[in-house]
Amino acid sequence: MSNVTRQEHDLLGWRDVPSSASYGIHTLRAMENFPITGRTIASLPDLVVALATIKEAAALANRELGRLDEVRMRAICMACSEIRSGKLHDQFVVDLIQGGAGTSTNMNANEVIANRALELMNRSRGEYDVIHPNEHVNMSQSTNDVYPTALKIAAWFAARRLGETLASLARAFLEKAGEFSDVVKIGRTQLQDAVPMTLGQEFGAHAHMIEEDRLRLQQAANHLCEINLGGTAIGTGINAPAGYASLVREKLIALTGIELLTAPNLVAATQDCGSFVELSGALKKTAVKISKICNDLRLLSSGPRAGLNEITLPPRQAGSSIMPGKINPVIPEVVNQVAFAVIGNDVTISFAAEAGQLQLNAFEPVMAYSLFNSLDHMEAACRTLELNCVKGITANRHQLRQAVENSIGLATALNPYIGYANATSVAMEAHRTGRSVFDLVSEQGLLSREQLNCVLEPQSLAEPGRSGDLRNASSGHGEMTGAERI
Amino acid sequence: MSNVTRQEHDLLGWRDVPSSASYGIHTLRAMENFPITGRTIASLPDLVVALATIKEAAALANRELGRLDEVRMRAICMACSEIRSGKLHDQFVVDLIQGGAGTSTNMNANEVIANRALELMNRSRGEYDVIHPNEHVNMSQSTNDVYPTALKIAAWFAARRLGETLASLARAFLEKAGEFSDVVKIGRTQLQDAVPMTLGQEFGAHAHMIEEDRLRLQQAANHLCEINLGGTAIGTGINAPAGYASLVREKLIALTGIELLTAPNLVAATQDCGSFVELSGALKKTAVKISKICNDLRLLSSGPRAGLNEITLPPRQAGSSIMPGKINPVIPEVVNQVAFAVIGNDVTISFAAEAGQLQLNAFEPVMAYSLFNSLDHMEAACRTLELNCVKGITANRHQLRQAVENSIGLATALNPYIGYANATSVAMEAHRTGRSVFDLVSEQGLLSREQLNCVLEPQSLAEPGRSGDLRNASSGHGEMTGAERI
Amino acid sequence: MSNVTRQEHDLLGWRDVPSSASYGIHTLRAMENFPITGRTIASLPDLVVALATIKEAAALANRELGRLDEVRMRAICMACSEIRSGKLHDQFVVDLIQGGAGTSTNMNANEVIANRALELMNRSRGEYDVIHPNEHVNMSQSTNDVYPTALKIAAWFAARRLGETLASLARAFLEKAGEFSDVVKIGRTQLQDAVPMTLGQEFGAHAHMIEEDRLRLQQAANHLCEINLGGTAIGTGINAPAGYASLVREKLIALTGIELLTAPNLVAATQDCGSFVELSGALKKTAVKISKICNDLRLLSSGPRAGLNEITLPPRQAGSSIMPGKINPVIPEVVNQVAFAVIGNDVTISFAAEAGQLQLNAFEPVMAYSLFNSLDHMEAACRTLELNCVKGITANRHQLRQAVENSIGLATALNPYIGYANATSVAMEAHRTGRSVFDLVSEQGLLSREQLNCVLEPQSLAEPGRSGDLRNASSGHGEMTGAERI
Amino acid sequence: MSNVTRQEHDLLGWRDVPSSASYGIHTLRAMENFPITGRTIASLPDLVVALATIKEAAALANRELGRLDEVRMRAICMACSEIRSGKLHDQFVVDLIQGGAGTSTNMNANEVIANRALELMNRSRGEYDVIHPNEHVNMSQSTNDVYPTALKIAAWFAARRLGETLASLARAFLEKAGEFSDVVKIGRTQLQDAVPMTLGQEFGAHAHMIEEDRLRLQQAANHLCEINLGGTAIGTGINAPAGYASLVREKLIALTGIELLTAPNLVAATQDCGSFVELSGALKKTAVKISKICNDLRLLSSGPRAGLNEITLPPRQAGSSIMPGKINPVIPEVVNQVAFAVIGNDVTISFAAEAGQLQLNAFEPVMAYSLFNSLDHMEAACRTLELNCVKGITANRHQLRQAVENSIGLATALNPYIGYANATSVAMEAHRTGRSVFDLVSEQGLLSREQLNCVLEPQSLAEPGRSGDLRNASSGHGEMTGAERI
Repeated sequence: MSNVTRQEHDLLGWRDVPSSASYGIHTLRAMENFPITGRTIASLPDLVVALATIKEAAALANRELGRLDEVRMRAICMACSEIRSGKLHDQFVVDLIQGGAGTSTNMNANEVIANRALELMNRSRGEYDVIHPNEHVNMSQSTNDVYPTALKIAAWFAARRLGETLASLARAFLEKAGEFSDVVKIGRTQLQDAVPMTLGQEFGAHAHMIEEDRLRLQQAANHLCEINLGGTAIGTGINAPAGYASLVREKLIALTGIELLTAPNLVAATQDCGSFVELSGALKKTAVKISKICNDLRLLSSGPRAGLNEITLPPRQAGSSIMPGKINPVIPEVVNQVAFAVIGNDVTISFAAEAGQLQLNAFEPVMAYSLFNSLDHMEAACRTLELNCVKGITANRHQLRQAVENSIGLATALNPYIGYANATSVAMEAHRTGRSVFDLVSEQGLLSREQLNCVLEPQSLAEPGRSGDLRNASSGHGEMTGAERI
Repeated sequence: MSNVTRQEHDLLGWRDVPSSASYGIHTLRAMENFPITGRTIASLPDLVVALATIKEAAALANRELGRLDEVRMRAICMACSEIRSGKLHDQFVVDLIQGGAGTSTNMNANEVIANRALELMNRSRGEYDVIHPNEHVNMSQSTNDVYPTALKIAAWFAARRLGETLASLARAFLEKAGEFSDVVKIGRTQLQDAVPMTLGQEFGAHAHMIEEDRLRLQQAANHLCEINLGGTAIGTGINAPAGYASLVREKLIALTGIELLTAPNLVAATQDCGSFVELSGALKKTAVKISKICNDLRLLSSGPRAGLNEITLPPRQAGSSIMPGKINPVIPEVVNQVAFAVIGNDVTISFAAEAGQLQLNAFEPVMAYSLFNSLDHMEAACRTLELNCVKGITANRHQLRQAVENSIGLATALNPYIGYANATSVAMEAHRTGRSVFDLVSEQGLLSREQLNCVLEPQSLAEPGRSGDLRNASSGHGEMTGAERI
Repeated sequence: MSNVTRQEHDLLGWRDVPSSASYGIHTLRAMENFPITGRTIASLPDLVVALATIKEAAALANRELGRLDEVRMRAICMACSEIRSGKLHDQFVVDLIQGGAGTSTNMNANEVIANRALELMNRSRGEYDVIHPNEHVNMSQSTNDVYPTALKIAAWFAARRLGETLASLARAFLEKAGEFSDVVKIGRTQLQDAVPMTLGQEFGAHAHMIEEDRLRLQQAANHLCEINLGGTAIGTGINAPAGYASLVREKLIALTGIELLTAPNLVAATQDCGSFVELSGALKKTAVKISKICNDLRLLSSGPRAGLNEITLPPRQAGSSIMPGKINPVIPEVVNQVAFAVIGNDVTISFAAEAGQLQLNAFEPVMAYSLFNSLDHMEAACRTLELNCVKGITANRHQLRQAVENSIGLATALNPYIGYANATSVAMEAHRTGRSVFDLVSEQGLLSREQLNCVLEPQSLAEPGRSGDLRNASSGHGEMTGAERI
Repeated sequence: MSNVTRQEHDLLGWRDVPSSASYGIHTLRAMENFPITGRTIASLPDLVVALATIKEAAALANRELGRLDEVRMRAICMACSEIRSGKLHDQFVVDLIQGGAGTSTNMNANEVIANRALELMNRSRGEYDVIHPNEHVNMSQSTNDVYPTALKIAAWFAARRLGETLASLARAFLEKAGEFSDVVKIGRTQLQDAVPMTLGQEFGAHAHMIEEDRLRLQQAANHLCEINLGGTAIGTGINAPAGYASLVREKLIALTGIELLTAPNLVAATQDCGSFVELSGALKKTAVKISKICNDLRLLSSGPRAGLNEITLPPRQAGSSIMPGKINPVIPEVVNQVAFAVIGNDVTISFAAEAGQLQLNAFEPVMAYSLFNSLDHMEAACRTLELNCVKGITANRHQLRQAVENSIGLATALNPYIGYANATSVAMEAHRTGRSVFDLVSEQGLLSREQLNCVLEPQSLAEPGRSGDLRNASSGHGEMTGAERI
């Protein structure tokens, strides 16, 4: 069946490659060597596109520097263009976790592009004397500058998508903050009742924290823009012509629209995986925060009867077939889990980065695997959190109000109005009798119900320092004592 | 197009389900809620089979306890049997990372089995009044006992596969240890030349460490056999009939061949993810060891000229197009990376386990996701390590011998034969002149070349304490000094 | 000032050592090289004692094998004995985190013992021609077998202490389980109200989980008993006489009372830090569990008014100066934090173990530092948890009972008695009206209040499957439907 | 013995406090509750000083806002001033790992300051009606704003110290880069011989990476400057007068010299530990990089005979008593270990941050414990690395040169001069015969020895793309082929 395979050779000898394959012998061996996760390069379209973009930029730069002829350049660029538009991705068949520092990913790209370029020149696949994966497609390049550059470009786009999703999630929380700005509740520290605030402040804090993390993430993503393309094997630029590094960068900027910079020290840049560690660290920070927020959502919606029951999450699926109303907080739960995976991925990336030796880090593939999982899963998680949870959250206003009135912490809020001594005395009585501070204060005539409602007005709570009006009204209750909560 | 969908309802309302789908409304909602990783339950055939096996065992037990009639039992069991034989796996479409503590995985199984059972009864999919996913397929069960039990059974099989691969890998190292038992080399501590040993001892140590970790892994896997099936929602067995827990366990033992035990405290067992944490910990320990061994393989094969170059790994793919002979240690490199991922997964699992609250841990799905990744990827990595690397390793005997003779550490090995004073003097001269200890000792007549070769015989090195013969031959070199290496 | 220092030399030259110091030149240099944490070997008395014990065992073995004379042996043993009784610990001044694979710890011991032995022989400190730290105290030894053996012995004792504390903690939970065995409460899954159980079951589960982890920890600690003493530099036993390994082990068993074993493969044992990784993994598992339990204690005691408020932790300190009754769960909080540190330490230990190269792991000191921190801090945390928290926990019985009666999950528990249809109908009405299932069931005459109380009896809840009596009493409510909770 | 204790009371009752103690009843209880690590607040002078500085700033602001009288203000400020100058630190006796979200740290400060202020007013310790720890020292404050603010200020100073040490370390590497700029060597990728470079480039890359991480660390440290002082209990500013937050910040800026900002959202800032997570992440990134560099130093100095032996680290202590010249790389080894601990601490901090609930994170103490360990130990490690290692590194020029000449990778460097076909042919012959490329090229007349030396000139290697001169000299060897290394 000589018609279903073609023969290719490399330094280890000859092998049969399926005739239908655009990839070649290197890719074939890599598939045999790395049957690890079953997830191929093709599962990361951003990466496939980034590889093709770099190859196109390189071909353009090599042509301009006189190293590549026009015909080959055009064929290579057309093949790259097709891949960038989504074609041939199924030919990127090497496992994402691979040995060889990304060589097999780079060679998979070189082989697919060479063979597609040959077809475009009406040549047969495998006619590498015409267009050679290494000599022409990989010209002036090394895996060691192509692979990390492709990872950075792909990660930059993934990070941008995540950034947009985070911005949208923050806006959703902010909208809820507005909606809940008039809902008074009891704040809690260390899970113990503390002092009043508004539910709007609580959701506003969530919005604020997410937005802040989004900015930090963007800063980390921007550090991806420093690439080592042109450094070739170890950063000395061996086998790349003079002027290549800056020219190929210009081509790449034009093709990607990203403001790329050539690293000032290419030897450092070739061995350094710091920008992946940094991005993963920023992702981990975001994961920690979002997980904390989801913990809060689950806690605030606990119940419905034997829990806090302050908010209700939109029901998304039956939690039980027998208990009508048993609805579980499945969306925050899935987000928590993605966050835990992101935190674990960060440890993996730290390990891989630390294990680099001398002029190269051979463990970039697992960094990429972990980093893209973190980016993509986090993006998906935040999207479902926004659309399937946050946007539909409602406040259980009656419950929230009751808890404030019933709380002993209310006495603290009355401190500026009735004085420390009265506040303490009321609090103690409330504690002893189980009665509410609200009732005791009004019964004892310390404040009228109207005044109490005024103290509990959202604006007073949000900025207690400025709520001076009532104090005049309640004068006679003596000077401020300055007693402070620990 | 009423013919392409059917209508199903649950407590949230009515939805159109594709007529062709064996799954139902719960699964449909879960797909919408959890579009996270794109990896579905179907990607873990062990888990799908375990779920079907539990459902079959439950149907048998429910029949025997008089809760399920014969007709339904037979239909359910036949559907389960089909799934266990590999059919319908494509209907397990929910994402592995999901909220709801595994409810959607359990319901996906309940729905597929119910609908397939209906078909086997010549009924239409969706006729749940005949066979209901919850009332019949899930009878006497809860997600909270089914899901962890299914995970444990699936993980047990995956761990067994890994155990077999580790045993085979250990044997491959042991064979090399035999092959290299006569190859003397210089041992190194802290990367500095130390004292002689054999390459066989080095590979034997690898074999020993892997075998030891395999045993620990097996012990951890055995703890998976303690299941909480029968505990239902929170471990109190609510809604399961008396005798159910022990009967369903017996059925499950018969179907799986695993010596399962019902946990002595079902309330504890329902909330406790300890056995996953333990297995992951054992996996992490194995990963740490295997990674260390791969580091050594890469170090010992470094070069070929400017490295240690003591062993040669079998070439697996071209490392470079321009440097003939640039072959990279791609197989150990991919194994290192899998190890890093396993270590990261362990952190994820710790996080998820710690986050459990009260009577249940809602985060088992991400534990499962991480644990099966660790088990499966590690198994794949160890297999490629054995077949594509260890079995083909060769010793560079000339280089190894030269390094021993040239080493200053040789003087330490001669200590018992020529005395501490002579050994020190020779070592210092070797250090000063750059000459070899071997040559200096024979030139100074301290030992003949024959005697030196005798000291360097592998048997003497492997058990230096017992090499007393030569000492008599070299008497006159004074008493042992007892000087010791730090 | 010749009277305040003495001169010592080593291969790097001469240095002044304080005359008052029992340590010598190696220790002096190590102090200068490693000014890292400020925590010295002396802060781990177990380790200092273990070192002295090994040195004593070695001296005895060397004497018996004829390598050490009686006079030196007696002086060395007497010095060791003093250290074992607590003397001279202040002379162990090297930082715990040190380079050199523990050499400086071993040399610190060798120097202190040599100098103290000299004093006991009425010699001056530094007269090393009489008793030399290396030649006599370190005879037949290497740092590479002494240091890990000392760590293992010290860790074994620390693990035993922790085991005792965990056993005591488990007993405290078990006592509470007994005390609360008649307290019915609503169980929760995913923080949502589920079905009834007893508070005794909840505390019993805690006791059970801690006891189980204690057993696992003990198993891991037992693996410490496999030592590599006698392997010397790289496990080949170079410079140790025949029979030494087994003899020194016997001496060590006699001195420590631990059933030590000599590792079957000493080359493997010398480079392998698996037993530390394993013990740390077991500690991490324990930390995960204890942290989860403390999370539960904090959650169950949240309030006092706007929280679950099911239990009350004993007040330990004022949480606030202004809110009488603001008491925070400070004891569980401190335990949580220790658990987080233990989990982080486990990552450190994994990193250090993975970084070992060839015949030795140079990073054992940081493993020791992290491991002893984990062991000691965990022990302290569990002790304060038992004494200052668990023993004083009280149940808020009224609140607990009310929550059960008020819960919709109660309907699930009534399922076997009133039938699925009735249960569902009552649950829905309760959900719609906000009324209690208890009241609705009795009002509708489905069960009398007496029968309801009977269902809620702790014994019925603990083993719902066996509570058949009432069912007969409530016959007429139709057959069991087999409806199951997801 | 009424003269040795005084009585104090709080909401839990009366206790005897040692008369000599400046701390009070809260501190006494905290010591009993948290006997965890034995490391007290006093072990972090930066933190003690930061606490006193905040208390002084608060007293000044409270005075200016009319809440505190002049006399008390002066006494409090004087007490704070003494502590800031180093006095009374021994009175900060609470364990660093403590429950209560830092309350005990804050109260320890309040009590010590109150009692010292009383003394300065010629009052007795414990006369809290005159100056009360809560009412006067803690006026307008809460633990929840004081404690994190103090941590941030203390961490800022620690980070600055670390930054200075890193800058100095980077300079030391840069000096070596200059010293080694003319030393040619073979670069290595994946531990396999690659292409030539200079040792100066290698050390320059180290300098560059450290400097880059220093900048990132500084950015992270700058985010510490956003404080929540004035937010009091939950960020709403309850019990603080209008204008307090901005006034106390101004006072604090004046006292510390740090450009502090009040967080724009105080509710978010009170519960958010993001800046600690971020700083720890930056530290982890630095640790990963420095550890990689130390791995390289150990690898490059391996040998002296059976290793790479390219550089020699300054000997710092004897590595062995019997092998003269056995010097171990103890300084890089200790740095590696600190890095591993920093990475583990980062996991601890992630756990603690994620565990925060609702309006506060109760686990800041363990974050502080881990963060200050990371900062301080890293600083110490980098200092010993610079002073005791990097500054004394020497190049083994002969060995380095030989390795280049002997390397097959040299052929790659000759590619532009002798053409791809010749280069490949020579490389293959070198590989087959074991001879050197240098010799083969000159023997075959492809290049003269002078030309070869010219190719190997450091300047040619550092910027290979610009080395066009020789090409003209070697014309006749045909056009460039564009072949590229993978």
